[in-house]
Amino acid sequence: MTGGQQYLAELREQPEVLARLLRRGRPEVEAIAERLRGHPPTHVVIAARGSSDNAARYAQYLFGAGNQLTVALAAPSLFTLYGAAPRMDSALVLGISQSGQTPDVVAVIDAARAQGCTTLAITNDVSSPLAQAAGHCLPLRAGEEAAVAATKTFTAELLVLAMLSAALADDAARWQELAAVPELAQRTIDSNTELDAVTALGHPSRLVVLARGFNYASAFEIALKIKETSYVLAEPYSFADLLHGPVAMLEEGFPVLVVAPRGRSSGDVPRVVETVARRGARLLAISDDDALLAQAELGLRLPAGVPEWLSPFPAVIAGQLLAGALAAALGHDPDHPRGLTKVTLTR
Amino acid sequence: MTGGQQYLAELREQPEVLARLLRRGRPEVEAIAERLRGHPPTHVVIAARGSSDNAARYAQYLFGAGNQLTVALAAPSLFTLYGAAPRMDSALVLGISQSGQTPDVVAVIDAARAQGCTTLAITNDVSSPLAQAAGHCLPLRAGEEAAVAATKTFTAELLVLAMLSAALADDAARWQELAAVPELAQRTIDSNTELDAVTALGHPSRLVVLARGFNYASAFEIALKIKETSYVLAEPYSFADLLHGPVAMLEEGFPVLVVAPRGRSSGDVPRVVETVARRGARLLAISDDDALLAQAELGLRLPAGVPEWLSPFPAVIAGQLLAGALAAALGHDPDHPRGLTKVTLTR
Repeated sequence: MTGGQQYLAELREQPEVLARLLRRGRPEVEAIAERLRGHPPTHVVIAARGSSDNAARYAQYLFGAGNQLTVALAAPSLFTLYGAAPRMDSALVLGISQSGQTPDVVAVIDAARAQGCTTLAITNDVSSPLAQAAGHCLPLRAGEEAAVAATKTFTAELLVLAMLSAALADDAARWQELAAVPELAQRTIDSNTELDAVTALGHPSRLVVLARGFNYASAFEIALKIKETSYVLAEPYSFADLLHGPVAMLEEGFPVLVVAPRGRSSGDVPRVVETVARRGARLLAISDDDALLAQAELGLRLPAGVPEWLSPFPAVIAGQLLAGALAAALGHDPDHPRGLTKVTLTR
Repeated sequence: MTGGQQYLAELREQPEVLARLLRRGRPEVEAIAERLRGHPPTHVVIAARGSSDNAARYAQYLFGAGNQLTVALAAPSLFTLYGAAPRMDSALVLGISQSGQTPDVVAVIDAARAQGCTTLAITNDVSSPLAQAAGHCLPLRAGEEAAVAATKTFTAELLVLAMLSAALADDAARWQELAAVPELAQRTIDSNTELDAVTALGHPSRLVVLARGFNYASAFEIALKIKETSYVLAEPYSFADLLHGPVAMLEEGFPVLVVAPRGRSSGDVPRVVETVARRGARLLAISDDDALLAQAELGLRLPAGVPEWLSPFPAVIAGQLLAGALAAALGHDPDHPRGLTKVTLTR
């Protein structure tokens, strides 16, 4: 296969992977949620690295807005380097890892289990150390992921989290909304087949990715995909944080990718677009807003009318497509990023 | 005054500001800690933006390692955009803001107070909306900060958090260690007066800043200082996260700043240095390790023998000096970064 074929094949598998997970994973998710409703956690602690850490960012908004739960991202080195596990006994503790191999994520789950917490592994490998360590496991059922840059396992992680949120809230309306996710993924892939315009960007050495609210996590994941596959230093910001400092960097020709499905968090978009224009930076957009797409040098179209809590699914998939197109335009092979291996064993 | 004089003057005020805060702030901190020891919180929630968000990252390690408390960073847009305040009633809720003006940080404190949480403002302005909103206030006593890029108020925020951790643990040994912080700040400033070697970097458009553990927060703050004052896209990573993807970006001549006081988190440093060398990237270092400094193209020396939990004070001050020197070498004025104002009113 020529470069990037695995990445693109796995990217295109997402509608099928998400549909399978929704169908087969629901009973397991409902069972765990029922247990948790009997002893509601005071908060959620999540241990994760890399792409999975971006899924954890999505969980901050998901559980915050949908379940009134605050989410702490565990600092794994507290457990591994400093041997100082915080008290988590009233928390629900999640470990998220595609491979289930990351030792420091396993260390957090081990510590949590020793404290008597409810622990839950979200992983693609049910025989992995993470799955073995946790009290419960929700498998991603995504099939083998061969490309180093995660695609289908990332959206599968988002989906398990979204299903858990719906189940904890015992909310039939949310389950109905979730049923549309596989089709939203398919429509996003089908609407963005022509990305040749990315060649007009030339060889950018840097780029910022902006979003807010539920899509703050999308900005992190899209920036990571671009870094992994194209070696462009892509940095994510919320619209709000950009104006607290990093805006100083924007200059003539600097590419700025705005990830902005219409919703409560898109009120900042006109101010951001105006700032980008005033500084002569280049606007790229991922959105369902025709006016924004028309202003952008390169626009990726999202399906309209998506509930905001589910908008990261199409947004991230559009970002995966953009990262793949950018890598191809730059002559890189996203299946084999230099210096990366699929499983990274951080302590 | 010529460019950067305010930034440098405020940077050099830090030993005095930190000494005053230690002396005058301790009774207030002890009083709040005594109240909290009567009703220990299940976890800590922190709302902050910009530099203050980096102080919150320090708090994750500080309260985790020193007080067995997990720390959740509040997602302010949950409160302002989605109107969905999570339950925080068993948590200690901190709002950190130099100006105390940031509306979304105030919104988190308002929601927490309405839920009956213990709320605490950490701010340089005791008459600000944040100070008014919170049940308790710990003032920074840093004097007016005129430069847009925060220096003395950032280390003052770290110090208030470190004092709170020592007081919550009721630990005399930690208070004794804290007493050395002003002198550590002075020694760091005095040891790094000659940074002309920074001109050899030319005009880098991008840079990564690496650290781990307690200094993960330092990496974020140093990267932010560099972005604010020099318009270089500086991105922070933990040693561990770098190897989970972004390592693919490193190429010939890419500047990599390693922030590594010797301690439990510096075990990864040889692997990082080896990776940087193998890819022909350029090594810069902030450390007390002679061997590491000798390998670096530009090294900033830290005082030796600093307790690891306090090592971010000298590390960040060294980073502030580097950012100032880089801005000067590039002909920028750190007192007046383009596009930034001192107070940013994000919703």
